[in-house]
Amino acid sequence: MKEIQYVSSSKLNEYILQVLLKLNVSDQVAQHVSKALLYASLRGIDSHGVRLLPHYVRAIQGGRINPNPKYSFDQTGASTGILDADHTFGHAACMHAVKKAVELAHEVGSGHVAIRNSTHFGAASYYAHEIAKCDMIGVSMTNTDSQLRTPGGIRPFLGNNPICFSAPAEDGFVFTLDMATSVMTYNKIKQMAAAGQVLPSGVAADSYGKETTDPSKAAMLIPFGDYRGYGLSILIELFCSMFTGMLYGPDIPKMFEAPLHQKRNIGQFISAYRINCFQPIDIFKKRFSELLYRLRNEPRMQEEIPIFVPGDKEEVCYRERIQHGIPLPAKEYEDFCKLTQQFGLINMEIKY
Amino acid sequence: MKEIQYVSSSKLNEYILQVLLKLNVSDQVAQHVSKALLYASLRGIDSHGVRLLPHYVRAIQGGRINPNPKYSFDQTGASTGILDADHTFGHAACMHAVKKAVELAHEVGSGHVAIRNSTHFGAASYYAHEIAKCDMIGVSMTNTDSQLRTPGGIRPFLGNNPICFSAPAEDGFVFTLDMATSVMTYNKIKQMAAAGQVLPSGVAADSYGKETTDPSKAAMLIPFGDYRGYGLSILIELFCSMFTGMLYGPDIPKMFEAPLHQKRNIGQFISAYRINCFQPIDIFKKRFSELLYRLRNEPRMQEEIPIFVPGDKEEVCYRERIQHGIPLPAKEYEDFCKLTQQFGLINMEIKY
Repeated sequence: MKEIQYVSSSKLNEYILQVLLKLNVSDQVAQHVSKALLYASLRGIDSHGVRLLPHYVRAIQGGRINPNPKYSFDQTGASTGILDADHTFGHAACMHAVKKAVELAHEVGSGHVAIRNSTHFGAASYYAHEIAKCDMIGVSMTNTDSQLRTPGGIRPFLGNNPICFSAPAEDGFVFTLDMATSVMTYNKIKQMAAAGQVLPSGVAADSYGKETTDPSKAAMLIPFGDYRGYGLSILIELFCSMFTGMLYGPDIPKMFEAPLHQKRNIGQFISAYRINCFQPIDIFKKRFSELLYRLRNEPRMQEEIPIFVPGDKEEVCYRERIQHGIPLPAKEYEDFCKLTQQFGLINMEIKY
Repeated sequence: MKEIQYVSSSKLNEYILQVLLKLNVSDQVAQHVSKALLYASLRGIDSHGVRLLPHYVRAIQGGRINPNPKYSFDQTGASTGILDADHTFGHAACMHAVKKAVELAHEVGSGHVAIRNSTHFGAASYYAHEIAKCDMIGVSMTNTDSQLRTPGGIRPFLGNNPICFSAPAEDGFVFTLDMATSVMTYNKIKQMAAAGQVLPSGVAADSYGKETTDPSKAAMLIPFGDYRGYGLSILIELFCSMFTGMLYGPDIPKMFEAPLHQKRNIGQFISAYRINCFQPIDIFKKRFSELLYRLRNEPRMQEEIPIFVPGDKEEVCYRERIQHGIPLPAKEYEDFCKLTQQFGLINMEIKY
């Protein structure tokens, strides 16, 4: 079998929907999950893309993820609300919250929705990006299980909590700053381990909390900018745990390691700021595009290496993959073939 | 003369007010400026504390700072507004914006105020902290002149823009995450230069944009976490420049180097989120204090070095300085003596 199979996003969409419908996932939830996974895979955020489907299948079968949620939304202020996600997919819950936040922002200029009883939501950028498409600044964040070594400590307590900010520029470009709070992600460390590479210093620690440059020994992550990444992880807990009553850090069951019947009880937070409450949208986009143009055209350190702004690399990847397909490594392709057999999807052909 | 003079904050407050009133600064503006400077000095944020008074005096005399502003506030949504600060002190403008944002949040759950035609506001944390005292999460940010080397580039474009987040815990403790977007501040680099120290790598670049460990050659700062600090600086420009129509990065006159008749045309942004729109305030504070307690009591890397949460070090410094006075190095003390002569403040005795 080929090392990499390229599959079109439309084929993958059909495939994901078929798998989820076989598991009695409601149509609306399934649509959101598929779109969110393809958003990530098309933009090169492979760790949060279609490769997670087999895990999600097991999490539905185990009872962790509710395929058919009854949401309840409590509007607590003209600009604020709390969504109970009834333990469904974080992807669907967050898109529900995005809709509410955008509605609130249309009414009163900004909208802020805290989400309780949620699960993994994939790539944070999908939700902020959707808000940006409504001519708003979008913010999305989630809490996660323990991964960051506490500064001055020897073990992880807080999660490598991600936060994303998005804003629209001209010609459909969306600025997307998607960051977790560690210097390097576990995924990148695993890639470096597989490639036999040595880690830079200040990236990871071993199981005793001592810094290591051996990627195979990495047991916890070091926060970026010391107190900054650490502090941002606490901030995200304010919005995702303190605002929602959900668990935090060491109390959150691990995504892959915890038994799959266990609910994760994580929280998310979504904000939308209506741009035309501050500037006319065309002036905002024009000035923002000028700012980005000036940055991209700054004199370069190496002529052949362009200067990027957050969102550029994902956009380049998107154009490539929407045309030539999403690359599935052999292992992931096999996982998909197993699902095909398991669910009797005999007519499903995911090759491009 | 002694190397360091210790002066009580109440004496300094009287002194600052007298100087500002001699320059016809309106009483309300002067009160805000003095409180903001003392907030910073008491918490060890000396670079943004009382030492800036002589600079501000010159900026009023030069015409950059308007001592007697006419604010105009345009409420653009039930949760949003724009404040025109009429080129007064950023400290006073931001406290006006804090008041408005808190009012909006009392009404509709959150309040967001963009500030135009502003100047330097000192320490970002003062404003977020004031909001936290109202049982809200507070956010404050400002844009600044060019300082950060663009990733992949060889010169600074964006400012080392600061952002602060604050939230209340039990017993009056306020979590305060105040960060600019560089790995190290210029002030710290200057201190290391004075002490003859070598910089760590990845902190600063020389005037050609090449990394340097010689603090005397540092001409620009490197953003933390590479694209993260860079991206956050862009994000802050969205709120402070794109939302306000104000200048950004290389177009902003330098604080100290630009002629003092020149307006700086910078922008700020203030947000308040009312906590009890999400959780009862006592439960929020209790759970947040528990989270902070658990972090502070994590096993330590070195038994003698405590684990801090953002806000702890400033709190320790505050307790020390409110009791024993604010330390003024000889140079700053002399600058103050010159002001004393200049304004005929013969009865003013700033010694502790």
